[in-house]
Amino acid sequence: MKVLVVGANGRVGSHLVDKLVENGHFVYAGTRRDNLTSSSNNVRYVHIDLLASPEAIAENMYDAEAIFFVAGSKGKDLLKIDLNGAVKVMRAAEHKKIKRFIMLSSVFALNQDKWNQSFLKDLTNYNIAKHFADHWLINNTKLDYTILQPGVLKEEPGSGKIDVNIDYPSENSIENVVDTLVQSLQDPNTIEKVITMSDGKTPISDALRNL
Amino acid sequence: MKVLVVGANGRVGSHLVDKLVENGHFVYAGTRRDNLTSSSNNVRYVHIDLLASPEAIAENMYDAEAIFFVAGSKGKDLLKIDLNGAVKVMRAAEHKKIKRFIMLSSVFALNQDKWNQSFLKDLTNYNIAKHFADHWLINNTKLDYTILQPGVLKEEPGSGKIDVNIDYPSENSIENVVDTLVQSLQDPNTIEKVITMSDGKTPISDALRNL
Repeated sequence: MKVLVVGANGRVGSHLVDKLVENGHFVYAGTRRDNLTSSSNNVRYVHIDLLASPEAIAENMYDAEAIFFVAGSKGKDLLKIDLNGAVKVMRAAEHKKIKRFIMLSSVFALNQDKWNQSFLKDLTNYNIAKHFADHWLINNTKLDYTILQPGVLKEEPGSGKIDVNIDYPSENSIENVVDTLVQSLQDPNTIEKVITMSDGKTPISDALRNL
Repeated sequence: MKVLVVGANGRVGSHLVDKLVENGHFVYAGTRRDNLTSSSNNVRYVHIDLLASPEAIAENMYDAEAIFFVAGSKGKDLLKIDLNGAVKVMRAAEHKKIKRFIMLSSVFALNQDKWNQSFLKDLTNYNIAKHFADHWLINNTKLDYTILQPGVLKEEPGSGKIDVNIDYPSENSIENVVDTLVQSLQDPNTIEKVITMSDGKTPISDALRNL
């Protein structure tokens, strides 16, 4: 499948591009940087500027059939990037009639009652931005969304095993998150689902099949 | 009527409280400060903390029959106050079944195409916060809203005359904005309307009646 990764040079995005190619997909790797080239025939860098208009963003989506949104400002520009940037990409996707939209969000972003927990306490602004982006995707678009909400990300090898629909916070290896994103694309059971996750005990494909 | 003003000590709110009393209303004056008292029998200060939960906010709405949201962080806490604080008040209003909700927004907050105009260029983060708050009120609540969107506010006496549904920016005396808010409460024709405005040529009541 041809897929667009928005935030392709990020902490998650760079691994996601590689894993998608390993799984046989062709990747439009969207970043705000220009003139990047890939050594892989299955990756084409495209210019996606989240400060541009939805129309300008749509132009560089080409013939992508699905979109991953894994961009983030690391707290530096939450309103323009994490919130409005995400919504612009949704609008562009609708304009291009690209239905499948897989969003990397954050654990409990839709559950404000949990934001007082110690591990989230310094992240309220981030959570608000993700909250309104997730909410828009669910309620203000007709996209076939999957929203993946892991907790803290760690630069560690993946176990291939996760827990889903968690109600306690826990760590996530980036590889597990990336594998879950890729397998979400391949499993229609993830459509219209919001999935909290952490490293855990169930093989990813089983966890998604039994959502 | 008994009305709640959220942001009652602000630049607009303080004038709004006075004008509402002049027009025969009883005002719950909502601020985050505690233990304030008014010299007027028709004003009661209530503690409204926009960082608290919607349930806690609802508790201090008492028997208000309509709500004005005129709070703002002046750019200092846009995600928590101008966006999520506003939405919490909407949720609290729905919880309390207070249907009438009058929002002070900002010119073109729902029209991103205009945010590149010079007078708005430094206000993108503010516009994003107001955009998502306005959008929530329209699309994610069943409240009887009026959204008033003036441009730049000036500390000047009002002329009592405005232009509405403007497509160019212009100045607004705070008194004109306050008078328009009060008259919106009294004119059901303003329900489910988004009203851009500036100081202008038409008496306020006529402008609202002919929306």
